[in-house]
Amino acid sequence: MSTEQSGSGYVEAGQEYQRDSNYITDRITADGSSGWPVEADRYRLVIARACPWANRAAIVRRLLGLEPVISMGICGPTHDERSWTFDLDPGGRDPVLGYERLQEAFLARDPEYPRGITVPAMVDLPTKAVVTNDFRQMTLDFSTEWTQFHRPGAPELYPEQLREEMDELMQRVYTEVNNGVYRCGFAGSQRAYDAAYDRLWTALDWLEERLSAQRFLMGGTITEADVRLFTTLARFDAVYHGHFKANRQKLTEMPVLWAYARDLFQTPGFGDTTDFPQIKEHYYVVHADINPTQIIPMGPDTSGWLTPHGREELAGSPFGDGTPPGPVAAGEEVPAEHGPGGIGHR
Amino acid sequence: MSTEQSGSGYVEAGQEYQRDSNYITDRITADGSSGWPVEADRYRLVIARACPWANRAAIVRRLLGLEPVISMGICGPTHDERSWTFDLDPGGRDPVLGYERLQEAFLARDPEYPRGITVPAMVDLPTKAVVTNDFRQMTLDFSTEWTQFHRPGAPELYPEQLREEMDELMQRVYTEVNNGVYRCGFAGSQRAYDAAYDRLWTALDWLEERLSAQRFLMGGTITEADVRLFTTLARFDAVYHGHFKANRQKLTEMPVLWAYARDLFQTPGFGDTTDFPQIKEHYYVVHADINPTQIIPMGPDTSGWLTPHGREELAGSPFGDGTPPGPVAAGEEVPAEHGPGGIGHR
Repeated sequence: MSTEQSGSGYVEAGQEYQRDSNYITDRITADGSSGWPVEADRYRLVIARACPWANRAAIVRRLLGLEPVISMGICGPTHDERSWTFDLDPGGRDPVLGYERLQEAFLARDPEYPRGITVPAMVDLPTKAVVTNDFRQMTLDFSTEWTQFHRPGAPELYPEQLREEMDELMQRVYTEVNNGVYRCGFAGSQRAYDAAYDRLWTALDWLEERLSAQRFLMGGTITEADVRLFTTLARFDAVYHGHFKANRQKLTEMPVLWAYARDLFQTPGFGDTTDFPQIKEHYYVVHADINPTQIIPMGPDTSGWLTPHGREELAGSPFGDGTPPGPVAAGEEVPAEHGPGGIGHR
Repeated sequence: MSTEQSGSGYVEAGQEYQRDSNYITDRITADGSSGWPVEADRYRLVIARACPWANRAAIVRRLLGLEPVISMGICGPTHDERSWTFDLDPGGRDPVLGYERLQEAFLARDPEYPRGITVPAMVDLPTKAVVTNDFRQMTLDFSTEWTQFHRPGAPELYPEQLREEMDELMQRVYTEVNNGVYRCGFAGSQRAYDAAYDRLWTALDWLEERLSAQRFLMGGTITEADVRLFTTLARFDAVYHGHFKANRQKLTEMPVLWAYARDLFQTPGFGDTTDFPQIKEHYYVVHADINPTQIIPMGPDTSGWLTPHGREELAGSPFGDGTPPGPVAAGEEVPAEHGPGGIGHR
């Protein structure tokens, strides 16, 4: 959901960072009662690989095998005050929507659309208009409303009997970790930063402890909760540690979280949707108010993501009785040199 | 020798960083032929704990036991375009010189003094004027010209038979590492940064290799070469890794260099002259053009500096046949909470 703010300023002097959380909250439902029925080939998911909130949607779509029924458009990593563009596509236009800017899909929905142009967004193809950009509900609906299209062996990412505990845990992960890193990076005063830093590391210490005796956040198999934590951990050393000053330790210095993150990274759906150069380019170029030179660091070395993690010793396996997804859909591969051990932005 | 540039801008768009290396190069000599004779209680060394070049002088003065004959003034960590001030002293004035700003000592030397106001500086007390701010020669002269005042058991930091090799090594460490981190941080273009990053890490890999089989840079005992490398390593994770984007790895992720740096840190004269909060405050506040919020990170955790380093297994010991210096001189102690495991700037 980046554009974290409209305009080019992310830091407000003297202030704690407040995320604008005003989204288009329509839902796409199995029974169609919302006016937006689940339907093959009707909707296009628009993401940017850089964005952690969009990365979630890409992971869940792939874990559940929804690629054949929900197509995906990919915005480039950087944007200006008019937000995300399809600059990676030939001719700079999304081949399905024909748009140059994601903004056009928001304006098709509401010509006066006043809020942030954010990814992920689900776009209705007949009207080329955004149905929802509510990243919080979107992936849960992939799990619970799109079941008729799940692949055989797809994991149950939001199991009914766990929802109460999951909702509470995911809320804490959201406020303290997913958004907690932004609260560090966009703090408008030393006092706001110090408080944000303490909140973040309190939460990371709690997660380090929780994951020391169980393989995944909810037990022996992956759930939506793991997807949500993963996209922040994948960006931690690449951007949050330096750019956002979330620097008590690197992820690589938190033994449990680092092993857990590698375990997920090496699970189909996670690492194969992670693009380190695009992640770095996004944050370091777009947030010119905290990185005025817009220079993108060469580091960190990402080759460690592929090293053995040893988490198999704990009970469980990522997909339990299910199976991992197959290869990445054609045309959706992250370039090999953008993965761990790749040569980065050169 | 910070003020790295005059004025408030450190980054020049499109340019590689070039250090202004135009100093007052007078020397204080044993025979007095330079006009500035070695003499007890005549000169005052002015440093700032934040500055790596000044930190060198503080370390060498202490290793050699020159505290009783060369007094020391300490500027605060931050400064404006008029440079270093004595804001840590009662009333904001150096108690010996009576100055509020180090600039006054440069103007006493030359009322039209046109260049950077830098630390370390040796100030002549009778005239209250700077004799030299040439950090390159200053510590070598402590070793070779001030010998009559060296404490018993003082190390030979610039041994005659090693000078040729040392000069070459120290030159490489200077251009590639000491100044190499600044070349990363103040690069005015992505291309200049990328080249600077490669140069830096090539040199750090070389040092990692060199130090894998010998305890110190020149063999089994410490020399000036170790002092020079140490002050950059001590600042590496605290500022250079994030603030200067020298981030392939943290120092803590370079096993040999990290053990070597801890070995030195735990040697009297090194860790006890290192002030992490002042180091961080200096870089993050003064370089507003690369950190416009001027927020100072809480991290990194520095407690690891006191962990066992295991370097005793290699041949040698820091002072060889000599002895370590005694306790830090009264009034010159780094506050305990500014050391490793301290609570930092809170």
